[in-house]
Amino acid sequence: MLSDPPTPPLVAAPGTTRAAYFVSDSTGITAETLGRALLSNFPGFTFQRHTIPFVDTPTGAAHVVADITAAAEAGLQPIVFTTTKDAAVSAVLAAAPATRIDLLGGHLTELEQTLGTTASEQLGQFHTLADTEHYFARMRAVEYAIEHDDGQSARALDLADVIIIAPSRCGKTPTTMYLALQYGLLVANYPLTDDDFPTDGLPSLVQPYAARCFGLTTTPLRLSQVRHERRPNSTYASLAQCTLELRRAEDLYRRTRVPFLNSSTKSVEEMSAVILQTLKLRS
Amino acid sequence: MLSDPPTPPLVAAPGTTRAAYFVSDSTGITAETLGRALLSNFPGFTFQRHTIPFVDTPTGAAHVVADITAAAEAGLQPIVFTTTKDAAVSAVLAAAPATRIDLLGGHLTELEQTLGTTASEQLGQFHTLADTEHYFARMRAVEYAIEHDDGQSARALDLADVIIIAPSRCGKTPTTMYLALQYGLLVANYPLTDDDFPTDGLPSLVQPYAARCFGLTTTPLRLSQVRHERRPNSTYASLAQCTLELRRAEDLYRRTRVPFLNSSTKSVEEMSAVILQTLKLRS
Repeated sequence: MLSDPPTPPLVAAPGTTRAAYFVSDSTGITAETLGRALLSNFPGFTFQRHTIPFVDTPTGAAHVVADITAAAEAGLQPIVFTTTKDAAVSAVLAAAPATRIDLLGGHLTELEQTLGTTASEQLGQFHTLADTEHYFARMRAVEYAIEHDDGQSARALDLADVIIIAPSRCGKTPTTMYLALQYGLLVANYPLTDDDFPTDGLPSLVQPYAARCFGLTTTPLRLSQVRHERRPNSTYASLAQCTLELRRAEDLYRRTRVPFLNSSTKSVEEMSAVILQTLKLRS
Repeated sequence: MLSDPPTPPLVAAPGTTRAAYFVSDSTGITAETLGRALLSNFPGFTFQRHTIPFVDTPTGAAHVVADITAAAEAGLQPIVFTTTKDAAVSAVLAAAPATRIDLLGGHLTELEQTLGTTASEQLGQFHTLADTEHYFARMRAVEYAIEHDDGQSARALDLADVIIIAPSRCGKTPTTMYLALQYGLLVANYPLTDDDFPTDGLPSLVQPYAARCFGLTTTPLRLSQVRHERRPNSTYASLAQCTLELRRAEDLYRRTRVPFLNSSTKSVEEMSAVILQTLKLRS
């Protein structure tokens, strides 16, 4: 008889749970994104993560140091990722009982060397996308995306930078919104339904804009899974129906030379980057 | 008589136009965001920016090096920001005639030191948010946001993590979409119109969820400007009407103790970060 497998330890090994702080003088988005990406390279550890935005005064920094100190006293050996630029704020943070990783400072020094000048003292440029025109562009893009979601409107379709086409539930809507918000692009999306087949070409509404179309596909299993979430045990969600719809859609993309990609293993960010690159929409 | 001001030079000073490359083995979003933020500290220079995503093979890297070499030969003294992790890819890029700023590598070394271990060789963790559950959460959140945009639906309003309230054109929709896409939160938004005033409290539809409400305001001038874009020379866009609506909205927020912020000088990212922090929605 085989012996039982060893019982897993009831507590984590000492030092494998660490506190991680993402500290920013602005939104904290960059500190958090980059910090998380860096930490993902160390799967043997558990990180208790804290994002602390808008730390732009020495007093604010002192509050953060108090938090970090408490974590250190609890044995969590804190790691602090910072994107703060103000010298006084940085000096306060430097006193925290933690490993500090400065995500900006070192790179600013490298840039100062290659450019032969010192960085501007101007604060608040980091992530301050408050520029009015940029804001209007995003607002218009999001409203355009909502109006043109799922083929709901043909108004001003000629203005679309991208028209995403795909069978229902292949990921059109989140990708549309991401492109609108992140890049201010006018993006419509159009569902391929049974009514669009059999066909020799693209649906008549989007046909005039074929050069701006981009197709999505996925795997039948994944599509079936997503559709079951919306309508459990329906024909719509059956594996046979999903297989058929995806095969027809892919045939259509190939025949009409519409570029397409498989969304099953890709994030919204990745799909958006591929679409931008394929349709040459990067500015 | 005063002399004329000096004529500005017709060509840029030598060396003030530089090529900047953001090179990534994934979407390029982090390389571009961080690189742009760093460059914004040097307002005396003009940067010709190029984002090159999905550079994950030595062959791909060689193409990038060819581009960089051409820019160097044109006198643009290239600067290359990289987030590539593969050693073979990095070796090819290192041969480019450019200043290279490695946005990840140095920080990985710092982490290896504090954690006392080497980084996992696992590639593709960076920005691969393809995890199915995460994807579903975002898709649901975006669909919820579309359904609940501008008070269009009261269905499942009890599930909302946040309900953004404001007069028309204060920035509800882009902020709603950003919170949905970036954080997978269920966010509704509800317009405050003349019908909601005079009132003693919040609109009846959102009243049960007062603790999850967040208000937006802006300056009358900015609101008038935005509204003129939609309906030029209307009462709706007049400064008097905008002033009245904003004053009533701010009074309402204060009376009902709904937290609020002024969107006029803030980016969508900044507003989202404030909302998350105020309503304690950071995970």
